[in-house]
Parts: sequence; structure tokens; C-alpha cells
Amino acid sequence: MSGRLYGVGLGPGDPELLTVKAVRLIGACPIIAYFAKAGRRGHARTIADRYIPAGAEEVPLYYPVTTELPFDHPDYLKALSGFYEASTKALAGHLEAGRDVALLAEGDPLFYGSFMHLFLRLRDRFSCEIIPGVTGMAGCAAAAGAPLTWGDDVLSVLPGTLPFEALVARLKLCEAAVVMKLGRNFAKVRSAFSEAGLIERAIYVERGTMEGERVTPLAEVGEATSPYFSLILLPGQGRRP
Amino acid sequence: MSGRLYGVGLGPGDPELLTVKAVRLIGACPIIAYFAKAGRRGHARTIADRYIPAGAEEVPLYYPVTTELPFDHPDYLKALSGFYEASTKALAGHLEAGRDVALLAEGDPLFYGSFMHLFLRLRDRFSCEIIPGVTGMAGCAAAAGAPLTWGDDVLSVLPGTLPFEALVARLKLCEAAVVMKLGRNFAKVRSAFSEAGLIERAIYVERGTMEGERVTPLAEVGEATSPYFSLILLPGQGRRP
Repeated sequence: MSGRLYGVGLGPGDPELLTVKAVRLIGACPIIAYFAKAGRRGHARTIADRYIPAGAEEVPLYYPVTTELPFDHPDYLKALSGFYEASTKALAGHLEAGRDVALLAEGDPLFYGSFMHLFLRLRDRFSCEIIPGVTGMAGCAAAAGAPLTWGDDVLSVLPGTLPFEALVARLKLCEAAVVMKLGRNFAKVRSAFSEAGLIERAIYVERGTMEGERVTPLAEVGEATSPYFSLILLPGQGRRP
Repeated sequence: MSGRLYGVGLGPGDPELLTVKAVRLIGACPIIAYFAKAGRRGHARTIADRYIPAGAEEVPLYYPVTTELPFDHPDYLKALSGFYEASTKALAGHLEAGRDVALLAEGDPLFYGSFMHLFLRLRDRFSCEIIPGVTGMAGCAAAAGAPLTWGDDVLSVLPGTLPFEALVARLKLCEAAVVMKLGRNFAKVRSAFSEAGLIERAIYVERGTMEGERVTPLAEVGEATSPYFSLILLPGQGRRP
């Protein structure tokens, strides 16, 4: 009998923000797989550290180095596609041999996660189960003590990779927003908030729920880039009886 | 010394989807408060049941009966406002007496939650901490095995209370969507998906992660209304190397 694939959401970074179910499955699966940058331990492995039993077999999946390649470049897509195929093969080997696999996913597995690329390739051949997790945006809103959506607010989640004009247009249309994937897009996103007349309401959160957490008004952030664990919140202002 | 207010996210419904931190705080706080309909135990209390110690003092906060009143009616707002004021007073009494209070919140406390109305009224007087939770939409996406957002997808979270035309316009503008607050708005929301040409891609999820879970294509749902725990997912179709 084949093993089962579990997509295990790890939450926003604080190891206490894993769910009871995630902790149980990490403790029970013989194979623990996770994505990481080459030569690094990886964020997922670090968040889950205290829950991984000594006897588990770890399967790190190292992203190919694609720095300097834009997301829509054929070489980037080819490198990623090859990586996902090889990772799929590695996990399929364990599943075929009857071993359950916990594939760790930062935040929630189905919300902009690399997990989904392996899930799509494995779900027709193996039994799969998703363990939802606390998203980075919920963790950052909690860190900021900023209620995100009220009453009939529309919330838009926008990737910072969008062009400037698209960001401005989208920001103007929503009551509440979260902008993710900042990094080298940070200065552009910040300008989009200014252009949309919303920068005074926006909050920048770095490493929300983790050591080194930083919460500050977006208007006061001077840097041109931001680190991996960062996002911008635009809290809604809807109905408040 | 005053007590501390904890806003404790309970996740989407499965009691195993509380976080480790939520479980710890529910076990440690002498006062456990939660919202409920008059005469009912309430969803929050039910989800957290197994984690509430026998010795805890429970403070149920019963919503006023406002059936038949529209959300923007002055009597509705007055009833809600009075209810939040009275609830604030009840919790403040415990906090002033030095007792920590865990206020339970379904899903995530800062995402369309009643918790926020008390948080706003208490946060300047008492120390507060938010424990983020898995949202209902993440739980429902997991139940459906439906990856929600890929690559540069924009996600919009829309309340079903929006007018028909607004729903159609918003749906046409996003790559991925979640529509919450269905109930008596269900038939209108379903028509909006049809009008936007998106009904074939939409998934209806009822009681996601709970007993009685139901996942079905929206196009196949015939009912005119839907229960409390229900929402519609429009999964994105973005970049997939």
C-alpha cells in the first residue's frame, strides 16, 4: 500500500503557531520533506525544528539558483519545472514504498506555496491531505495589532511583483489590502501606496511573530528593498458599531 | 496589576486546527470568554471544548436578537453597539481584578471577527495580545484540495453582502476570489458568478474541516440559501512551472 502525502502548513514563523494537527503529523510521518535554498537549512525546517523526531528521514528539496532571471524568462521556468519534476520523483519514491511524507509549507500550503507544484503532480497517483496553516498575513496583522477587515470590507491580496500602474489601480479599488512578495519590489510598492493616497494608513511588518519582529508605519520606512519575511498591511475601515 | 486580554484564534472548525499557542493560553487563562447566540452554546465554545479546563470561569457573551434588521439600520447598530459596550464592561471587570482573559474567536481574530469590536474598546486600557488562527477560507481550500493562489495571482475576499453589480465587477477584476457571508445572499452571489462567466471554476464548501463537510462545484448547488459555515472559492490559475 502506498504512503500518504501531507501538505503541512507551518504558520507565519513562531513555532507555537503550528496547529495541533501539524505537530502530530510531523511527529508521525517517517519522511519529512521541505524546500530550502541550496546550502541553507531553510525557513520551513527552522520553524518546524522542535517538532521533528530524531529518527525521521529528512528530504531537503533545494531550489535551483535562478538569481538574476526574471520570473517569466524561459530559462527560469525551465529550471523551476525541472526542479519540481525531480522533487516529485524523490517524494514519489517514498510514497510508492509505503512511507507517509510530510511536506512542510510555510504559512498555508495552498496560499502562494511551492507545495502546490508538487501537489498537482502527485495528487492523481497518491492519497493526499492538506493541513491548513496560519498565513503570514494573519501573523503580521496580529503582530501589528491591526484589525484587517470589518463588516463589508473587500480585502485584496496583491503580489508586489505587479507593475506600478496595476498596483495603484488595485489599491484604489479595495477597502483593505495586503501586499506580499516585496523584496526588490519594495520601493515600487511604497510609491504605489503614495500615488494611491494610502500611505498614511499602511503598516510595514517584518518578521511578524518571529525574533527581530518590526512593525512600523510604511511612511517611515526608508529602505529600497525588504527581506523575505515582510509585507504591507492596509487595514480596512468598515462598519464598527 | 491588571490582567491581559488574549484574542485567541480557533481556526476553521476542526479542533485539531487550533495552534499550539491557542491551546496553551486556553489552558492557562482563568477566564474564557466567547460570543454565542442567545440560548446556544456557540460555535467558538464548541470548537474549543476539549481544551477548556474544568476550573475555568466561562463568560458567554450573547448577541442581541437582531433578526430582520438590515446591517445598516440604526436600531441594528444601536443594539450591536450596546452589546459590545456591555461585553467590554464584563471583560474589563475581570482584567481590572488582575485576571487574564482568553476571548475566543472563530478563524482568525482580526479577519472579520466580533473580537475586534471589544479589542478596539479595551486595547488602550489593558495589555492585549492576538493569537492568529487558521482562517475559514484556508480550511475550506484545504478541504477542497484547491490551491487558491499561484505566482502573481491577485486574491479578492468579498462579502456576499455586496450588491449584485458590485460583486460581478469585483469578480471580473481578480484572478482568485473567496466569497464569505453567504447565508441569504447565496442565490445573488451564485448569479454574480454566472454573470461574470466564472461559475464553472467556482467551488462551494460547507462546514470545511468539520463533520458534515461538503465540497461541490458551485454550478451544482441548487439551494437559495446556505448555512453559517459556508463559502465559495474561485481558485487562481497563475504561473505554474
